[in-house]
Amino acid sequence: MDSAVCAALAARDYDAYALHFSYGQRTEQRELQSARQVAEALNFSSFLHLEIDLFHRIGGSALTDPAITVPKAPEHEPIGQTIPVTYVPFRNAHFLAAAVSWAEVLGARAIFIGAVEQDSSGYPDCRPAYYQAFQQLVRTGTREGDIEILTPLIHLKKRQIVAMGLELGAPFNLTWSCYSGADEACGECDSCVLRLRAFDEAGTPDPIPYALRNPS
Amino acid sequence: MDSAVCAALAARDYDAYALHFSYGQRTEQRELQSARQVAEALNFSSFLHLEIDLFHRIGGSALTDPAITVPKAPEHEPIGQTIPVTYVPFRNAHFLAAAVSWAEVLGARAIFIGAVEQDSSGYPDCRPAYYQAFQQLVRTGTREGDIEILTPLIHLKKRQIVAMGLELGAPFNLTWSCYSGADEACGECDSCVLRLRAFDEAGTPDPIPYALRNPS
Repeated sequence: MDSAVCAALAARDYDAYALHFSYGQRTEQRELQSARQVAEALNFSSFLHLEIDLFHRIGGSALTDPAITVPKAPEHEPIGQTIPVTYVPFRNAHFLAAAVSWAEVLGARAIFIGAVEQDSSGYPDCRPAYYQAFQQLVRTGTREGDIEILTPLIHLKKRQIVAMGLELGAPFNLTWSCYSGADEACGECDSCVLRLRAFDEAGTPDPIPYALRNPS
Repeated sequence: MDSAVCAALAARDYDAYALHFSYGQRTEQRELQSARQVAEALNFSSFLHLEIDLFHRIGGSALTDPAITVPKAPEHEPIGQTIPVTYVPFRNAHFLAAAVSWAEVLGARAIFIGAVEQDSSGYPDCRPAYYQAFQQLVRTGTREGDIEILTPLIHLKKRQIVAMGLELGAPFNLTWSCYSGADEACGECDSCVLRLRAFDEAGTPDPIPYALRNPS
């Protein structure tokens, strides 16, 4: 959802190239399908699909290790107070490193990433300080040092992201957020719960189907 | 050569785990063979070999794109004044990102990388400021924020690295530095020329064979 809104922003302002990763996450086939459809719907110039085998090899996260269960979101507690087992160690650095390498070859000026701090699950690599550090890494470690790392959603609440996406015409119907679902989103993991709350607060229905929307 | 000396330092002070990358570089099979042998000679606890298909996919470097020729080193000019065509865009960020992810899972305290600034080929991702920025990225973007990025060779001259390697017993005979050679190192690329100069200045013979040591 966040990536789709971020992609819609990028496509509005730039000749945009999409980069998508399969990194052994449980829903990688489903995410790939969504990402391709979103990029196509937004008229991206190119779609680069990369595979990272590292996380499958080293384990350590519920998103990439079948031996660790994806927990249900707590019913009456805030999400994001501690780092959860779905944290994939230093994952976004891999995504950004690839984006910077490709940007250098393309001569691209900016990299968009849909990281969100406040309403996120407490992942350290979703905080503004992390992206400031990455910007400094780009300044010091690339040919020209001038590629911008943009995180236009980072200070938004999830409901604001839904509102922005509706305004931009982001294809929410094509997106996928669930950590553990198969044909339909589970409705119970942190990611589903945050998404459902966001649409609820924005006063608009989430257009994707859920296996278990109202379990009680 | 630099990696082997750095590995010898790590193995002296820590229970060390080796991480090696095939990223589509011309000599990836030969480098892999050397890396395995060096890690074995230094009694590393583990050897993780990762493959990165990005650089092959995006091109842009003489090291990974067969369409770009690896140049011969200039005969009477210093190496490292400009960024050469062998620069692989933002390469070391990919190496370090993988090392940090693995370190988080292992509970490792430090990451060693054999980057060298002064005598290197002018790569932006071999400068101290770049590693300072990466350290900040680790502080802000990992679970505990306490993994150290160590660049013990960064301020050394190549001849000092040779001297340090001799003192530590680094297995120079097992190493590989050439950018473009096959069975034997070419003796003509920047990497070979810097290496040969280093051994020469250190007053000790380089133990590996060269196809073309004295072309004149």
